[in-house]
Amino acid sequence: MILDFISSPDDLRKLSVKQLILLCSELRSEIIRITSNNGGHLGSNLGIVEITAAVHYIFDCPKDKLIFDVGHQSYAHKLLTGRRKLMEDLRSFPGASGFPDPKESEYDSFISGHASTSLSAAIGLAKARDINGEDFKILSIIGDGSLSGGMVYEAMNNTDNLKNFIVILNDNQMSISESVGAMRKYLTGLLSSKSGLHFRKVFRGFLSQLPNNLSKCIEKFAKNFMYAIKGGTIFEELGFQYIGPIDGHDIEKLIKIFKNVRDIANYKPVIIHSVTEKGKGYELAENDSIKLHGVEKSYPERFSDVFGHKIIELAEKDEKIVCITAAMKSGCGLTKFAEKFPNRFFDVGIAEEHAVTFAAGLAKGGLKPFVAIYSTFLQRAFDQIFHDVFLQNLPVRFIIDKAGFPGADGKTHSGVYDIALLQNFDNFFILAPSSKYELQKMLEFAANHNSSPLAIRYPKSEAVEHARNDDFEISFRIVSLGENVAIFFCGPLLNNILEAVNISKTNPTIVDVRVIQPFDFDKFLKISRDYKKIIIVEEGIFGGLSNIINEFLSSNKHFDVLTKLIFLNTSKSPVVHCSREKQIQTSPLSADNIASALKNYA
Amino acid sequence: MILDFISSPDDLRKLSVKQLILLCSELRSEIIRITSNNGGHLGSNLGIVEITAAVHYIFDCPKDKLIFDVGHQSYAHKLLTGRRKLMEDLRSFPGASGFPDPKESEYDSFISGHASTSLSAAIGLAKARDINGEDFKILSIIGDGSLSGGMVYEAMNNTDNLKNFIVILNDNQMSISESVGAMRKYLTGLLSSKSGLHFRKVFRGFLSQLPNNLSKCIEKFAKNFMYAIKGGTIFEELGFQYIGPIDGHDIEKLIKIFKNVRDIANYKPVIIHSVTEKGKGYELAENDSIKLHGVEKSYPERFSDVFGHKIIELAEKDEKIVCITAAMKSGCGLTKFAEKFPNRFFDVGIAEEHAVTFAAGLAKGGLKPFVAIYSTFLQRAFDQIFHDVFLQNLPVRFIIDKAGFPGADGKTHSGVYDIALLQNFDNFFILAPSSKYELQKMLEFAANHNSSPLAIRYPKSEAVEHARNDDFEISFRIVSLGENVAIFFCGPLLNNILEAVNISKTNPTIVDVRVIQPFDFDKFLKISRDYKKIIIVEEGIFGGLSNIINEFLSSNKHFDVLTKLIFLNTSKSPVVHCSREKQIQTSPLSADNIASALKNYA
Repeated sequence: MILDFISSPDDLRKLSVKQLILLCSELRSEIIRITSNNGGHLGSNLGIVEITAAVHYIFDCPKDKLIFDVGHQSYAHKLLTGRRKLMEDLRSFPGASGFPDPKESEYDSFISGHASTSLSAAIGLAKARDINGEDFKILSIIGDGSLSGGMVYEAMNNTDNLKNFIVILNDNQMSISESVGAMRKYLTGLLSSKSGLHFRKVFRGFLSQLPNNLSKCIEKFAKNFMYAIKGGTIFEELGFQYIGPIDGHDIEKLIKIFKNVRDIANYKPVIIHSVTEKGKGYELAENDSIKLHGVEKSYPERFSDVFGHKIIELAEKDEKIVCITAAMKSGCGLTKFAEKFPNRFFDVGIAEEHAVTFAAGLAKGGLKPFVAIYSTFLQRAFDQIFHDVFLQNLPVRFIIDKAGFPGADGKTHSGVYDIALLQNFDNFFILAPSSKYELQKMLEFAANHNSSPLAIRYPKSEAVEHARNDDFEISFRIVSLGENVAIFFCGPLLNNILEAVNISKTNPTIVDVRVIQPFDFDKFLKISRDYKKIIIVEEGIFGGLSNIINEFLSSNKHFDVLTKLIFLNTSKSPVVHCSREKQIQTSPLSADNIASALKNYA
Repeated sequence: MILDFISSPDDLRKLSVKQLILLCSELRSEIIRITSNNGGHLGSNLGIVEITAAVHYIFDCPKDKLIFDVGHQSYAHKLLTGRRKLMEDLRSFPGASGFPDPKESEYDSFISGHASTSLSAAIGLAKARDINGEDFKILSIIGDGSLSGGMVYEAMNNTDNLKNFIVILNDNQMSISESVGAMRKYLTGLLSSKSGLHFRKVFRGFLSQLPNNLSKCIEKFAKNFMYAIKGGTIFEELGFQYIGPIDGHDIEKLIKIFKNVRDIANYKPVIIHSVTEKGKGYELAENDSIKLHGVEKSYPERFSDVFGHKIIELAEKDEKIVCITAAMKSGCGLTKFAEKFPNRFFDVGIAEEHAVTFAAGLAKGGLKPFVAIYSTFLQRAFDQIFHDVFLQNLPVRFIIDKAGFPGADGKTHSGVYDIALLQNFDNFFILAPSSKYELQKMLEFAANHNSSPLAIRYPKSEAVEHARNDDFEISFRIVSLGENVAIFFCGPLLNNILEAVNISKTNPTIVDVRVIQPFDFDKFLKISRDYKKIIIVEEGIFGGLSNIINEFLSSNKHFDVLTKLIFLNTSKSPVVHCSREKQIQTSPLSADNIASALKNYA
């Protein structure tokens, strides 16, 4: 294998173009093998193999700085920059992270995991370089999906004629779901360039009918005209030199163009529009590029699936129900809803801020919007939740997926902040289902709750079923009665707690909190007074449910209860990438740790 | 006065164009009179008088929905929609808010106060209208300053051929400071249209030299050509019908165009590019439109001013120091810095997300970035602080202005969340100066603190001086020693506390927290054990300093201390608009309330 001889980009540069083509094919096999063992992003990584190889062939990393937007397409980059061994345990620490991380390698110039940040980071590095009087190139590789994020425009608005600043637009016409919106249409227009082609054809025909010197005169004039109106891509209007579209799988061409760009980029920012196929080289991935965005083994029914089914059932009965997502259609379980109710489903692209204010507008207009979003990306819209939803008390329903530990995606995808963020707003209902049944009941409740905003948050995990037929109410559910200690939990942590009970051989009262806000303080006080200790288990940082309880007890001077509390929360330091189960087992929420707490006080 | 006869837009529509012109002049006088009594935004409101009058003349509000972006330019709108009496007490509840608020009037279709949200809200209202089968127009009025905010592009990307959807771009070439960036240059290009004009001139000259029928043939061809390449403004590329630029002070023309647009807007979204002068009709405002963005009486030295002076002094000695702001140059005290260090000052426009990630890039590149930002707008960048600053532990310095109560700007500008947001990240230094001296010392510290992110937060208030020469340390400062009760405060609340001591006739120990994170728990425990009660006063919601203290005490089982604590925080419900002093005096932080707490336990 040629790859065996590549321990850094220096080795790469010794290869011929023919060898490079072979290497790309080897990289594809490696990526397929690694992801089939470890999961991860397959399609996007297969799509960018040639671009990555060509970048490292022409540019001089780590002196030159390479930033991947979103970062899930950095596997080939990692394989070429001395991390083949780490890649064997991809997404499982101390194996390689699925995203770039400067802590992992000096070849990773900046962290990424959330979309649309790369240009801003690159501009920062470029301005620092210029102020420091240094000399190197800065490259950002950004997918067309990330172009729906507003930050990219904020950044382009500030590119300010930077030199040696190169953006490679990796246009595979997909984000997590299909890319959407006007910018997508625009890029497609650039790709087909029908109007331009048509014009050139007609123009040549027209010129051929004219006398030679007049024809030349008009041709020259037309060129000036083109110049005068700027020929005009949006990128050019915003100050970039636009190059493309080019075939992102033709490595020979890529090398030529990158070489030229490397040499000419010292007069203005350049954007190279390259077209690739997501999943290139892997038949299955090419045919179903959404599924292959992230590769996973078959899995039991998850909360996302339960939401996906239930929301269809509710929407069939209630035509005011609409769903919004920001490029997380399939991840949030909305694929079937989108097919069934195309006019009541809105995928706004990677644009969380817009998604939330748009949903606020829908609510103000009398509809019942459900915003399906991952916890970590909800963070993007904190201000819109404050300004447009909270202040106007609009009944927007947030369906927060992948809340809590992020699993193999790791620290950039932490979902431990959502409760802490939302409990800042006193009108927000915050629900956390412990089972499939609870989620279904909560969704029914949400569909009819029009008096305030509401959030339902759950992790990426199996929706365990506990056969039941009780009603949902805005209060706790007593799971089982015991003695000495009462343990309150929220979310699907019951099995963990039952395991802790087993380990500790204790008999606590177990309470499913269900409704984090408005918290049933009366019932909490009543229960609390019957027990020596109260343990509160929350898959989120201290500052969510814990803050709600502390604020109430402290301001009402229930010091007797306050001194009984043991809070078990996630850490405020970044988590390492590995399975969610392992993250739980190495945290204060582990069965062992809960068992210790139980033993101490039972 | 004609205005005396206008109690709703219905009355307006009875006027002739001549009367409308008179009315506009009356509106200007009223706006000048009202803002000179109450403060507020003068320039932006004077600039948009004709557009507002013409909108209400042609459109049918409140059936048609009108949304003001940022909303600080809604005074004429308020005067024309039955709120003249409320406007007498502008910015002081129960007088009119300085921003649109559906709670105040049905003519305010959506809340606004933060920038760049109007298109998203308008699209939401429009989709709801279409799904509900209703029939009305939706108008958004947005300044060119707001166009630097990424949300606008996220929204334009999703406008999706909406009908009866009209955007009025109020182009006054200013945000709070001068508008900046590529989009500004682009708009200026549209205004001058030099290339287009030049082309038409040359083209006509060229045609006149040709035989008549050939000339006609080429003219027709050129028209087709223009069509083929779309003639192309960015707005057209994104799916809008672009109209303009037009004179935003020519009411007769505005009425004609709005009437046409009203009638043609039922086939695609329209953007009307109107050009106005900020401060039009008020000589002083026109000449110095930055100062007149917000009108205020002369004031004593504020924290912003102290920062503005000190950062110049530091930057003179340390060339790594750079400053970043998101259109808050003068508000944050950076006007002189920008003049003195033009290459080390970056105003990125209204683009907080970009500002933070850009600063992270600068820090990664080895510089010492100071991001000057209002607390309420920092909320926009929560995710960027998490993803780019916290996870990479980059030494970005956040200078958080207008933290705490928002004063007359009211609820949309609440600055009570910043401590709660930043304490989620365990590596963040959070400092709160109580005086000019402390801020100066903290800035010196910040300039040399390269091991983690850091924030200094202060309200829009006088920087009281207490003559001192002690050193700054990462711990509390004991202001005075007393007995029974110790009172911890952060920020400039000492006078309030001294007043409470006076009222209560008690003698507590007074401690200036200074450093909220990392909190000096050892010293806190030591102090706490000497007192019966500990009162903690924080100009922010429960969940900031309170959460830090609760987390520590609770997880370390210092229940003896926990039961001594009294937290005094701001409310989690929206605040009403009035002076910051009044907001404090009607909150748990009031001298009276602190005095009660002191009396209870002294």
